[in-house]
Amino acid sequence: MIMPVNARTAEHPALEIQMRHSLHLIIVCLALVLTGIAANAQSADATDEVIVRLQKEALNSDLAWNLLAALTSEVGPRMAGSEADSIAVKWAVDTMHSLGFDRVWTEPVSFPRWRRISENAQLLTPSKQNLVITALGGSPSTGGPLEGELIQFATLEALEAAASEVVQGKIVFLSSRMRKTREGTGYGETVMNRSRGPYVAARKGAMALLIRSVGTDTDRLPHTGMISGSQPGAPVPSAALSNPDADNLMILLSHQAPVRVRLDLDVGFEGSATSYNVVGEFDGSADLDQRVLLGAHLDSWDLGTGAVDDGAGVALVLAAARLVADLPLRPRHGTRVVLYANEEQGVYGGISYAKLHEKDLHEYLIGAESDLGADRIYRFKTLILPQAEPVIDLLAMHLKSLGIERDNAEPAGGGADVGQMRKVGLPVIDLNQDASRYFDLHHTANDTLDKVNPDNLRQNLAAWVTLLYITANSTVAFGPVDRSE
Amino acid sequence: MIMPVNARTAEHPALEIQMRHSLHLIIVCLALVLTGIAANAQSADATDEVIVRLQKEALNSDLAWNLLAALTSEVGPRMAGSEADSIAVKWAVDTMHSLGFDRVWTEPVSFPRWRRISENAQLLTPSKQNLVITALGGSPSTGGPLEGELIQFATLEALEAAASEVVQGKIVFLSSRMRKTREGTGYGETVMNRSRGPYVAARKGAMALLIRSVGTDTDRLPHTGMISGSQPGAPVPSAALSNPDADNLMILLSHQAPVRVRLDLDVGFEGSATSYNVVGEFDGSADLDQRVLLGAHLDSWDLGTGAVDDGAGVALVLAAARLVADLPLRPRHGTRVVLYANEEQGVYGGISYAKLHEKDLHEYLIGAESDLGADRIYRFKTLILPQAEPVIDLLAMHLKSLGIERDNAEPAGGGADVGQMRKVGLPVIDLNQDASRYFDLHHTANDTLDKVNPDNLRQNLAAWVTLLYITANSTVAFGPVDRSE
Repeated sequence: MIMPVNARTAEHPALEIQMRHSLHLIIVCLALVLTGIAANAQSADATDEVIVRLQKEALNSDLAWNLLAALTSEVGPRMAGSEADSIAVKWAVDTMHSLGFDRVWTEPVSFPRWRRISENAQLLTPSKQNLVITALGGSPSTGGPLEGELIQFATLEALEAAASEVVQGKIVFLSSRMRKTREGTGYGETVMNRSRGPYVAARKGAMALLIRSVGTDTDRLPHTGMISGSQPGAPVPSAALSNPDADNLMILLSHQAPVRVRLDLDVGFEGSATSYNVVGEFDGSADLDQRVLLGAHLDSWDLGTGAVDDGAGVALVLAAARLVADLPLRPRHGTRVVLYANEEQGVYGGISYAKLHEKDLHEYLIGAESDLGADRIYRFKTLILPQAEPVIDLLAMHLKSLGIERDNAEPAGGGADVGQMRKVGLPVIDLNQDASRYFDLHHTANDTLDKVNPDNLRQNLAAWVTLLYITANSTVAFGPVDRSE
Repeated sequence: MIMPVNARTAEHPALEIQMRHSLHLIIVCLALVLTGIAANAQSADATDEVIVRLQKEALNSDLAWNLLAALTSEVGPRMAGSEADSIAVKWAVDTMHSLGFDRVWTEPVSFPRWRRISENAQLLTPSKQNLVITALGGSPSTGGPLEGELIQFATLEALEAAASEVVQGKIVFLSSRMRKTREGTGYGETVMNRSRGPYVAARKGAMALLIRSVGTDTDRLPHTGMISGSQPGAPVPSAALSNPDADNLMILLSHQAPVRVRLDLDVGFEGSATSYNVVGEFDGSADLDQRVLLGAHLDSWDLGTGAVDDGAGVALVLAAARLVADLPLRPRHGTRVVLYANEEQGVYGGISYAKLHEKDLHEYLIGAESDLGADRIYRFKTLILPQAEPVIDLLAMHLKSLGIERDNAEPAGGGADVGQMRKVGLPVIDLNQDASRYFDLHHTANDTLDKVNPDNLRQNLAAWVTLLYITANSTVAFGPVDRSE
């Protein structure tokens, strides 16, 4: 149930006077009930009207686009721990100030610094050809060029099942291809090649690992991404091939003749770095101790300008917070926007934030994150207490007009960063974009501004202002929900 | 008019005997006329039947695909004058032999050797970012890194109109974007940025040139290609930016603050090289001194594996020649397939071939070239004598079933290489592919096998066997046509 604070209905000065006349109690009670019904009806209408107006404004707004264009052009790629990462933090602080946030601050986040200095690979036999590769994040260096024969496995399971003798001293090639789906489910099916492959290859005695990029495109642009930080042992030097390069190797391997490759990765961990979660708040219209938490991550990989991952999310949560704060009457609760540090290399920002703020869980009404690009949002999921269902019904009604349906098949996860607070009890809502195209671009040099469709970005913004306005106006609590991994 | 040589109708042994009986002359004449009509009717039907069968075979054939897969995987990129170019020549000779060509030989082609050793560019201000560029073919080296402020012009005309004082010492950025059309006409509208831009920039005192890639994609993959070899003066060091990089610069330039760039191209001409036109012939069924000339170029740029430019053309003309030669009865005329050397850097193979073979013009029936990828062929054009129109009518009829219409709006050009023989009088036919997608891939690292659609390649092959069979069976001459530039 939504009860917006409305200047005309929040107070009834006639009420106290009438209450003194006990003679008219029944009439007064009747009047009060009728007034209440009328007031409720009016405020529901007013709420709907505000939301429709907000959505219309979002659907005509260039704010998210302009923020995204600024971040991707002025800062560009901003890999965690790099010089550009510091520039991004400064950009985020300055931008929050210029957007009029009531409070802006930063919270330090430390992590091991991983560097990509150079990376090269060549096919040696049957002919010399450059292979388009990129080192996986967290990969060690090859320590100069290494050469070896490829041994191909369709899946990580096949590699795990192989005898060490056949793998020993070779370069493992994991060839499984990611499926393209609207839900992005193909990612979970193949990402273990990247996250666990380097460790499994090491255990089998391989000298290095090449994986087919975990991506759905056919571009000559490999997909980077982090290898797991929580596996036993040490990983082998590991890189991803572009899909066309992997296809080419598959043809050559089908000839049953040895395929030899040279790999030279000058990459690796070197000391530690500190970046910052950038936090900004808009107050609500009531003096309440709970706020809505909106999140996105500020860092990107180094290959592209991080427009879809996650510049779009940064732009969307900033713009949504600003549009809602600009209303003649803000919603009751405030908004906290967190632009997380170093999501890409291990969710450092999100984990650090949850560690620091777990004790403040009661200060959050609900959380949501944008980190799946900015193609059209087509569904939303929730993880809330049943008592808040009426608020979600209102949300569902208003998201429907944007082509977004509620999906009850599974609970919301809250995203990589905000999801860390979900693990300790924060209720969350997920707005899910159509991910069909996302994994064409994800973690590649092709992640640039031109890949964001301005109309889709506006549809996202309309969904975010709807979510923010409705939740921030709630008079019922959404959580806390059960702690969960 | 087509008159296929048919064992059953070419000779009439009964004829001479009957001719001796003058008494039966009228009857004989009548019989002869009737036999002739029947024979003609039968041969037209037989021709149609052969063509329909050939097309069906082509539409089910994997031959072109297999040839293309072999060339792009076993040889890969094959820039003229490189080690891989020699391997490609050997591959072509071996492949022609294994396809059963009756004669195979090579003809040397010499040209200046241009080398790409390394190429890098960075944005320096307002922030440090890598720029994805590739040197233009024929560009000189920067002789180490050079740094300068960008000065942007929308078109080459605008640069030409600019005062030297404002261009002097700057890095010119030509930003016009190529239009995407089915006919590929956008190429001619923007390619002067690449071909003439480096000279115009030099005349204006610029230190270097960056152009927006002459390409229609939005990938982070720049398009190389040759600068003109016939302009007065010397060109400045020149490179192409990927479209997203050009977009990014345009946003930064709109801020009215200086944009500085570092460019480091280690490229340039170094001595000369010799490659080879690879020539193969299949004889016809009659002992005639004219043959059909089919051409494609064997070299590619170095960035991709040259699948669409022009591996597909190589595979198509080889496969078409083989399928037609495999018929129980070959067409009357033979086929000469020429796989030209170094088209990319200045049509060296085509020009060399025409110089050597101009004197043999009478030995060619007609010519045709495949060098626009392998998306669906949708139209054909001709440059022939009017007397050959009936043959073209038959061709039109049979191409129609493949979705290909005759276009009479302009004459055929014969392509870059075969067109050199057209200039001295060779009649030609153009089979035009839908070029909408071609300039997404043209001269980029993305020109790889996966970009070729196997069904479209088969449609191309069906068109090529139709063209070859019908023209090689002609009893009328298609030319010579007027000499023209």
